[in-house]
Amino acid sequence: MTAEYFKDRIRSIPDFPKKGILFRDITTLIGDPEAFREAIDTIYEECRDLAVTKVVSVESRGFIFGSTLAYKLGCGFVPVRKPGKLPSKTIKETYSLEYGTDALEVHADALSRDERVLVVDDLLATGGTLRATCDLVEDLGASVAGIAVLVELTSLGGRDRLSEYSLISLAEYDSETI
Amino acid sequence: MTAEYFKDRIRSIPDFPKKGILFRDITTLIGDPEAFREAIDTIYEECRDLAVTKVVSVESRGFIFGSTLAYKLGCGFVPVRKPGKLPSKTIKETYSLEYGTDALEVHADALSRDERVLVVDDLLATGGTLRATCDLVEDLGASVAGIAVLVELTSLGGRDRLSEYSLISLAEYDSETI
Repeated sequence: MTAEYFKDRIRSIPDFPKKGILFRDITTLIGDPEAFREAIDTIYEECRDLAVTKVVSVESRGFIFGSTLAYKLGCGFVPVRKPGKLPSKTIKETYSLEYGTDALEVHADALSRDERVLVVDDLLATGGTLRATCDLVEDLGASVAGIAVLVELTSLGGRDRLSEYSLISLAEYDSETI
Repeated sequence: MTAEYFKDRIRSIPDFPKKGILFRDITTLIGDPEAFREAIDTIYEECRDLAVTKVVSVESRGFIFGSTLAYKLGCGFVPVRKPGKLPSKTIKETYSLEYGTDALEVHADALSRDERVLVVDDLLATGGTLRATCDLVEDLGASVAGIAVLVELTSLGGRDRLSEYSLISLAEYDSETI
């Protein structure tokens, strides 16, 4: 399916979560059985030959696409979460936001050194979250086989921060326009 | 697969998130490709004849199972989230916790009146979250075709609060024991 197909099923909401932001709402896409299936199947076709052993995603919306792709690829699924949410021993990556910092964690035993990981998220914006997630994967000695996102906000330059990886996006937006 | 199969792949962690709680950690199950597939396929077999049109799950762990089942069942997926996370018009249900209250929201246009919903979560404890989720589904005029969870903590009585619904769990625990 084309980018236009997916963009037709993603809702754009002005001034969310704050004034001036045009939010790309994927709930309309995932609520449509055909569109959800097409999104997963399109990413699957692009990634099936990457010899992926695990899919890693960040809470919460990333889980929706990552877990389904893990099932489809016959892989295990590994959640990356905000600090304090994972119950066993974790490792952490801290990353910069517009104001201040945030951090993500993964279980220290979630990946072994020979694993090839597909990193999946709903959205690529500045790339901070995906950069931290790839760093967590590599901190555990595993390798990033590729990154897949539904929505890419091209004007924020996230792709440049992840230039060493193969990156698939289904729907690109210049973030200033509907 | 038997409950023992799933319980063998769920890790039990004492004193998380606070002292005295024995936390059932499903990350070990979902990280194992075979066990994740068996969990989804077992729920799928139980639910495939329910004529479900949407799967509804609560963030964040619920998304892992609910979205995958939606894909497998050929349904749309509807996220239920904490207040303020969903970008469009929502409805809200408030529910009681041990100390205080919490609330969940769903998009007001996420379900139509003729829809049959499978509600999926990772865990059934006291049933407060699942009760509020079923109430949200019914507030929108849709019907709950069934509930599926991976882990049921039987001594907390959640099943009694949901007695009007068909409820499947893959692994039951008396919450006091490992």
